[in-house]
Amino acid sequence: MSDPIEPLGGETVFKGKTFSVAVERFRHHDGEQVEREVVRRQDAAAIVAYDDECVWLVRQPREAILRFTLELPAGKLDVEGESPLQTAQRELGEEIGKSARHWQAVISYFSSSGYSDEQVHIFAATGLRDVDAEPDPGERIEIVAWPLADLDAAIEACEDAKTVIGLQWLAAARRTP
Amino acid sequence: MSDPIEPLGGETVFKGKTFSVAVERFRHHDGEQVEREVVRRQDAAAIVAYDDECVWLVRQPREAILRFTLELPAGKLDVEGESPLQTAQRELGEEIGKSARHWQAVISYFSSSGYSDEQVHIFAATGLRDVDAEPDPGERIEIVAWPLADLDAAIEACEDAKTVIGLQWLAAARRTP
Repeated sequence: MSDPIEPLGGETVFKGKTFSVAVERFRHHDGEQVEREVVRRQDAAAIVAYDDECVWLVRQPREAILRFTLELPAGKLDVEGESPLQTAQRELGEEIGKSARHWQAVISYFSSSGYSDEQVHIFAATGLRDVDAEPDPGERIEIVAWPLADLDAAIEACEDAKTVIGLQWLAAARRTP
Repeated sequence: MSDPIEPLGGETVFKGKTFSVAVERFRHHDGEQVEREVVRRQDAAAIVAYDDECVWLVRQPREAILRFTLELPAGKLDVEGESPLQTAQRELGEEIGKSARHWQAVISYFSSSGYSDEQVHIFAATGLRDVDAEPDPGERIEIVAWPLADLDAAIEACEDAKTVIGLQWLAAARRTP
């Protein structure tokens, strides 16, 4: 069942600032052709940044779902030539005002592989220290230092995929040192 | 920071079979208006179906990312009037050929809240038994009975958000009965 899927091209039907949409055709190994509507979007990097007491989260507006959500700091890979790790390091400074001595790749996942190619790379960051950072004035971001003692409550309170995944990982990592 | 976000309307720029795209405006509490490109898509339900030995997964083609992925059985809430739980129950029959005596809501999350309103509702299903089901002939789905003893390897092997979240939850639930 893991035969290759051959892309046959398609048509871009929307080209936006943050993603585009294409209607594309693909050929399966047995010759059958299928058509799919696909969102093409830059990948993202997210950070599980924690010390002995807290994991550092952000609360920010998500207009698409009309609410403020509690999330891992994260950002799109929108700087030319930047690796996922470099994006994570930059975003930790911009959103939380910290740098980290130790970085670990946790997991990379696709947000919703049925219709989008967006992949998110999650890193753990420890050995945190404060840095001078100019927060992006356009971002309405509140920094939340969530106590690790209440990590299960953070998993309950968060609502987006990357944050659930990152905090579930952290809870498991703390159980099995 | 949790002030309401007021939707001001917008324009649908793509209307597809599985999602639409709109450029919409929103007003924040302080009066500032922002514009967002938003994917509007039906929500989905996914199932962590397991017995004493296995968790039941599917391997299926995801053309958008040109690969076959190992996933929780899942489906869109595309039947009028169906609740997320009912969709999960239907999909467990259609994709795995099983019904379950016990259902538990695990978590609901947004796939990628920066640009999409898609929410996925994950349920755990136990007390499984075989049912007569007609698999959808259009779906190239291979059923995979993954041994619970190798659950960590499944978390490594899967690549999509719902499956990572569901299997991390199962691993944690098995650690703390």
